Amino acid sequence: MTQPKIDVLVPDSDRMWADIMELSSIVDDRSPGWSREVFSEPYKASRDWTLQRMRDAGLEASIDAAGNIVGRLAGKNPNAPAIMTGSHTDTVHSGGRFDGIVGVMGAIEAARMLQESGTRLTSDLIVVDFLGEEANPFGVSCIGSRAIAGVLDPTHLERQDADGVSMAAAMAKFGLDPAAAVAMAWKPSDVKSYIELHVEQGPMLENAGTEIGVVTSIAGIERLMAVFTGRADHAGTTPMDQRADALIAAAEAILTVERVGCGAPIHGVTTTGKIATGQGAFNVVPDSSTIWAEIRSIDPSWLSGARRRIADQIAEDAAKRGVEVAIDLLNDQDPVPASQSMQDTVARAADSLGLSWAAVPSGAGHDAAHMAHLGSMGMIFIPSRGGRSHCPDEWTDKEHLGSGVQVLTSTLINLDQA
Amino acid sequence: MTQPKIDVLVPDSDRMWADIMELSSIVDDRSPGWSREVFSEPYKASRDWTLQRMRDAGLEASIDAAGNIVGRLAGKNPNAPAIMTGSHTDTVHSGGRFDGIVGVMGAIEAARMLQESGTRLTSDLIVVDFLGEEANPFGVSCIGSRAIAGVLDPTHLERQDADGVSMAAAMAKFGLDPAAAVAMAWKPSDVKSYIELHVEQGPMLENAGTEIGVVTSIAGIERLMAVFTGRADHAGTTPMDQRADALIAAAEAILTVERVGCGAPIHGVTTTGKIATGQGAFNVVPDSSTIWAEIRSIDPSWLSGARRRIADQIAEDAAKRGVEVAIDLLNDQDPVPASQSMQDTVARAADSLGLSWAAVPSGAGHDAAHMAHLGSMGMIFIPSRGGRSHCPDEWTDKEHLGSGVQVLTSTLINLDQA
Repeated sequence: MTQPKIDVLVPDSDRMWADIMELSSIVDDRSPGWSREVFSEPYKASRDWTLQRMRDAGLEASIDAAGNIVGRLAGKNPNAPAIMTGSHTDTVHSGGRFDGIVGVMGAIEAARMLQESGTRLTSDLIVVDFLGEEANPFGVSCIGSRAIAGVLDPTHLERQDADGVSMAAAMAKFGLDPAAAVAMAWKPSDVKSYIELHVEQGPMLENAGTEIGVVTSIAGIERLMAVFTGRADHAGTTPMDQRADALIAAAEAILTVERVGCGAPIHGVTTTGKIATGQGAFNVVPDSSTIWAEIRSIDPSWLSGARRRIADQIAEDAAKRGVEVAIDLLNDQDPVPASQSMQDTVARAADSLGLSWAAVPSGAGHDAAHMAHLGSMGMIFIPSRGGRSHCPDEWTDKEHLGSGVQVLTSTLINLDQA
Repeated sequence: MTQPKIDVLVPDSDRMWADIMELSSIVDDRSPGWSREVFSEPYKASRDWTLQRMRDAGLEASIDAAGNIVGRLAGKNPNAPAIMTGSHTDTVHSGGRFDGIVGVMGAIEAARMLQESGTRLTSDLIVVDFLGEEANPFGVSCIGSRAIAGVLDPTHLERQDADGVSMAAAMAKFGLDPAAAVAMAWKPSDVKSYIELHVEQGPMLENAGTEIGVVTSIAGIERLMAVFTGRADHAGTTPMDQRADALIAAAEAILTVERVGCGAPIHGVTTTGKIATGQGAFNVVPDSSTIWAEIRSIDPSWLSGARRRIADQIAEDAAKRGVEVAIDLLNDQDPVPASQSMQDTVARAADSLGLSWAAVPSGAGHDAAHMAHLGSMGMIFIPSRGGRSHCPDEWTDKEHLGSGVQVLTSTLINLDQA
């Protein structure tokens, strides 16, 4: 049997685009943009739609204990480890129509292309729509891919949202089996490779006029919460040099977080995403302030050093002001490099299709970071207009989508043949 | 007729202390510290108590249209303009037992001392407990003294709290006549002098070991609200140099506000009392932030220059970051100098009583600032422990209170004789 030439497999971009737009109609209409948050009613409704789309595409599909929609296209050798691809279809609040979704709809389109072209892989092709990739009120992102990778544990289930509801309770209410989700880990021998198509969510590809991003590594994330405690004083009567102003200490810390991020030699970003203070009034020196910051890098040594430098500088500056500070550091995720062989495979596919490509870091976390526990991992990025993501004006051109799915399909075939 | 020697008039500190403690029992028990906010039930209840205390002290007392409790001790010449003293008995939320209260209870004690010593003044002595001196949800401080001074106007009445209730409605519900309050201004010819005893609310007297503060001027207040609008971007994927981070712009502004305040050559303080941001998350570059700041000084030229320098610097720094900023400037109050003759009278009284004194600015606003519209104005400060005020641990020693009332009484007699 001869494999078809890769360049005859051209995705039907209109069909895929229609899928994306149809899915975007199953959202919370009360919010701006597109909101389909994990455990929400619109998300629940969308799961049936996505399951049916997989079945319509010829996949043998079902929903597992962790809520992942798993579709299988049987290969010639039932004993070979599977080739996997996929992403997620949940969104952040008031998010966009492409983040995650292009990886699921693109995978479904790839499965359709393989079948329509009569291309049967040796391995099973498994397409997954992972449950709840985005950050949620329980502080557990990538629920579904953690479960498959065996890194969802009982402590994740116990985490509570602001109303004291546990994630286990939310999963059960959503019709899932939390205990089974924790116990359902796949074996590394089940999976040969995992490749994920995703929008870049940043501006680098667009700025460089590059069509395909070959992801080198998924950034690690360190998080930091700093609670400043000063002294409430009358703002009119307390001399400047006799204050312990918690808000000024927090402002200095915000600038420290930025300064360290700007000094990353290879790759690094730092963000203070949130600040909270006490009640606050024009005429009272603030006595309390809390900031939440994060540091991301694909460079593990810079990442841990930056975390320490930021914490030390914040503590030193606060002490000079007589402000107490308690700093909590939380390692959210270590950097996860993509397999070199996967990077090479994606780059070769782009080359053979005449598409420009560049090696890029992933600043965002992805299901792929967890799937790397099971087999070789790679990611394909396509451009995001203006680098915008997690907002209603998130956008990726249809032609970039087509190019991405073409590279994905070619990569799947090459992985199967390797 | 001979006037009694001043130094025979010694206040009964225990009696005055008991008054202060008794009044401190009429508060909102659900809040920490002592809360007797304007228009509250505890404040309403306290008005009857204070009215009765004035009557018990031999004053002919009643409540006027603006809710001021006005007590009169008739002088020998009914045609002479009055000597006035007083302060306020409302508190901030979770405030203390001394701010304002010592000026009212001290004035009542002075009236008792004059009568008990058989000292009859030529002028009427008028003791006032002004309605609602503290900042309130309508943004109108010093309601009662504004009304007496003729600077309460219909626009003040229209101001609304966060629930959309107008101050006029709140006054009416409290049993007052808002229209009459606006129309009841006293004439300058009614008042010869106004002298107010108050706790310093700052640390200068205590730090210097000084018993009496002779207030030189009441600081002017400029207020500033800056609304920063940046762009929400993914915190993991957006390079540091391509962000428009509204929170960092706000942090820079907070440090600018501080830096300008630290540079005041004579007297000045600056405070960012409050910050608000959008929803906020670890992983989103903040797109909006608002700060509320104020600048205070007794030096009018520095005050207006500082306001401009702060606003210009904030705008320049935000522009460099691609962050838009809208700055609202609000002149809350111009500096109000105390009459030189009043300062001299208070200083002479302290000298004659063997009390140490220092000329000090008032960083806080006071009813006295409005009363200056009607006649010569002065203020007497007594030490606040640790400089603390507007908080439960506000404290002034009984002996300092006694010294303050002794200086007040001596000043009243000297003003009457002048």
